[in-house]
Amino acid sequence: MAEEFDVLVLGGGSAGYAAALRSVQHGYSVALVEKSKLGGTCLHTGCIPTKAYLHAAEVADEARSSEKYGVNVDFNGVDMAKIKEYKDGIVAGKYKGLTGLLKMRKVQVIEGEGKLVSQNEVEVDGTKYKAKNIVIATGSTSKTFGLPLSDKIITSTEALELDYTPKSAIVLGGGVIGSEFASAWNSYGVDVTIIEGLPNLVPNEDPSIIKIMERTFKKRGINFNVGTFFKDVEETSDGVKVTLEDGKTFEAEICLVAVGRGPVTEGLGLEEQGITLDRGFVMTDKRLHTGVGNIYAIGDIIPGLQLAHRGYQHGIFVAEEIAGNNPMIVEDINIPKVTYSEPEIMSIGYTQPMAEEKFGKDDIEVIEYNLAGNGKSSILGTSGIIKMISVKDGPIVGVHGIGSRIGEQIGEAQLIVNWEAYPEDVATLLHAHPTQNEALGEAAMALFGHPLHG
Amino acid sequence: MAEEFDVLVLGGGSAGYAAALRSVQHGYSVALVEKSKLGGTCLHTGCIPTKAYLHAAEVADEARSSEKYGVNVDFNGVDMAKIKEYKDGIVAGKYKGLTGLLKMRKVQVIEGEGKLVSQNEVEVDGTKYKAKNIVIATGSTSKTFGLPLSDKIITSTEALELDYTPKSAIVLGGGVIGSEFASAWNSYGVDVTIIEGLPNLVPNEDPSIIKIMERTFKKRGINFNVGTFFKDVEETSDGVKVTLEDGKTFEAEICLVAVGRGPVTEGLGLEEQGITLDRGFVMTDKRLHTGVGNIYAIGDIIPGLQLAHRGYQHGIFVAEEIAGNNPMIVEDINIPKVTYSEPEIMSIGYTQPMAEEKFGKDDIEVIEYNLAGNGKSSILGTSGIIKMISVKDGPIVGVHGIGSRIGEQIGEAQLIVNWEAYPEDVATLLHAHPTQNEALGEAAMALFGHPLHG
Repeated sequence: MAEEFDVLVLGGGSAGYAAALRSVQHGYSVALVEKSKLGGTCLHTGCIPTKAYLHAAEVADEARSSEKYGVNVDFNGVDMAKIKEYKDGIVAGKYKGLTGLLKMRKVQVIEGEGKLVSQNEVEVDGTKYKAKNIVIATGSTSKTFGLPLSDKIITSTEALELDYTPKSAIVLGGGVIGSEFASAWNSYGVDVTIIEGLPNLVPNEDPSIIKIMERTFKKRGINFNVGTFFKDVEETSDGVKVTLEDGKTFEAEICLVAVGRGPVTEGLGLEEQGITLDRGFVMTDKRLHTGVGNIYAIGDIIPGLQLAHRGYQHGIFVAEEIAGNNPMIVEDINIPKVTYSEPEIMSIGYTQPMAEEKFGKDDIEVIEYNLAGNGKSSILGTSGIIKMISVKDGPIVGVHGIGSRIGEQIGEAQLIVNWEAYPEDVATLLHAHPTQNEALGEAAMALFGHPLHG
Repeated sequence: MAEEFDVLVLGGGSAGYAAALRSVQHGYSVALVEKSKLGGTCLHTGCIPTKAYLHAAEVADEARSSEKYGVNVDFNGVDMAKIKEYKDGIVAGKYKGLTGLLKMRKVQVIEGEGKLVSQNEVEVDGTKYKAKNIVIATGSTSKTFGLPLSDKIITSTEALELDYTPKSAIVLGGGVIGSEFASAWNSYGVDVTIIEGLPNLVPNEDPSIIKIMERTFKKRGINFNVGTFFKDVEETSDGVKVTLEDGKTFEAEICLVAVGRGPVTEGLGLEEQGITLDRGFVMTDKRLHTGVGNIYAIGDIIPGLQLAHRGYQHGIFVAEEIAGNNPMIVEDINIPKVTYSEPEIMSIGYTQPMAEEKFGKDDIEVIEYNLAGNGKSSILGTSGIIKMISVKDGPIVGVHGIGSRIGEQIGEAQLIVNWEAYPEDVATLLHAHPTQNEALGEAAMALFGHPLHG
């Protein structure tokens, strides 16, 4: 007879392992099926390694500019093999921690490729496992649109394994992933050009943020061509050539394809069991139920923001749902977002255009607080803004920021928006001086009608 | 006849200029009397220049350790004259901004030393100015306990003007100021020894924070001797000698006296008008009224935390009070605090011993989340903790943190404590991955009974 679990999770990435961990906390027997490495994209080829790369980039930038701080440094470039070693060390440490945690919490990890074979059975390498509840969490992978991947035409996964610094690179896609790689590579001394089909870099951000992002990238020497989609990418004798739809061509040593990520749901037996897919994404109700048996789906295979912390939340949500705890749904609009490029971007809630559409142009208040007035930002040598949007005589519905290290301000920003704070709820409280965090207090004071500085 | 103002503020530091700026926003005519430079201690010899010094220290530390990030750097020490130049540039920029802001907002700045000559008159260099409301905001200065200040025995003010790097330094006082200077100097290559009379460094912090602070300082090679007060400081032929009460002696090239700051209230005519002083501090009621005429007192001359943002809040509070807006009193316990050393410390609300005393040992919950489980902290190479304290089945009443860059987490921490959030109010919301900010979410989840990672 097949071994039976209360909860079986298919996929050991952020969403899947969060579901598993929370389920054991509720006393359930839990299996976690993973075909590759526990931790998934985020840990091995996503959030963690890219942020390690971006920290090395920050160190390089500071070394370059250290003289203005009175620190005598000869900067002799970066060593990609060593950056990779540093990155590998971070990933290995976290991987060990996660593996140990799952073991300690008694999640039964099943190695292999799982396939749904009935409404309550998953088969892994010929062995069937029964489960009262099944959670699909198979994640996403880089889209390539059929481009001929090679040593020179790569996705983010391969980019993180480079052991040399290319002289030049074309980055296809100016979204979060593309902008982060472009930023790091520019800091490493690579001549970078971003190709973005939409009219702007980081097109999902607030227009004020986009403007500063593009201006700062330009100032840093990151080239970009926006508003025209690429048509073709081909290898040349000494690199790659990208042709746009308007015939314009760009050449470089390598090309990073960062045109989004698609769901990994093929061949899992989902549709055979009656689960609805749409362009590979799993269609669920608002409570992440697939409509079939006790089968849920979570993380990047659900249309919306593909973020590790959304995965965690989905995983926890479904575990609580299975436990009968009726968890609260968190809408995508209330999910904090950070882009870890230089400058960093953070955002939560409505952008100005979204707020204008939702609440009416005359019924919102918008404040842009310039970081030029923020002492700590001047000390760090960064410019940027905090933008805060409220409903008139109502709550703050959007907080956006750009500038070095500004990503960490997302903590207070998300509480403000999620708790539907009014400007005066924030403006009357003290923000520590001199932090970058003060800028949020200043923005709230300005929104409340009484700016202090500036 | 004497010129008359609605509001006259004596002292142009953080507290004073905040009172002035907010008062003009309410339509009042406002004079601001300053004997030295607008911006006061914070801008010229406190918060801003010390944080510039500490950023230069961070840059030096990163240069030293850059190899482990794959960044090739030869570190050739620091140049104190250039660090000073950088610091002077930051201060000059902020000073220009503040001067311009006060001018734009039409605050009438009166240069000179003011003295209270009646309940509604201040005299500055022989000229009398009348005012319906007077706000005393004369700030604080380094205490020296009668020590013979010299080229070698200096306070923080002189320390910020050094144009050479001493080989060794003794720092008298292991509080915030002493710890910040010790941290920066150690990064600059100075052999530093802290002398603290109380049993611990940063003695006002939570015990868990203190433990990590001391361990990290030790690891960094910062020497300290705690638990015995100093008895004497004297110049020697080639430096200074500090003798403790137990007879132990320490020698170094220079000695920084960082034993606290005292109020600047002598010779201002305060007592002559009936205002009560206690060891130089001005005694007011809870609403910062001196009990005499329409005279208020704010900032560092009021017993309690000597912090620029408390000064801002006092200034704003009194301006709102004068305008009849009945502002909310913010207790010192609800004021966010940051120490900008390496590691940084942030704290808001009750420490564990304070919470045990206030709410009862069995009626609180305490969580320490180790930053070893936090991806971004590993990437930055920092260790540390977030400590969160709640009343059982009640609100979070204290949040404390230590680690590189952790100071910026004070934003979310202070909202949590000030808004009296329950652990579940924070635990159910998303924290962006991978930020240091996540650690607050993890701590709240653990306090709520369901840790995710770790």
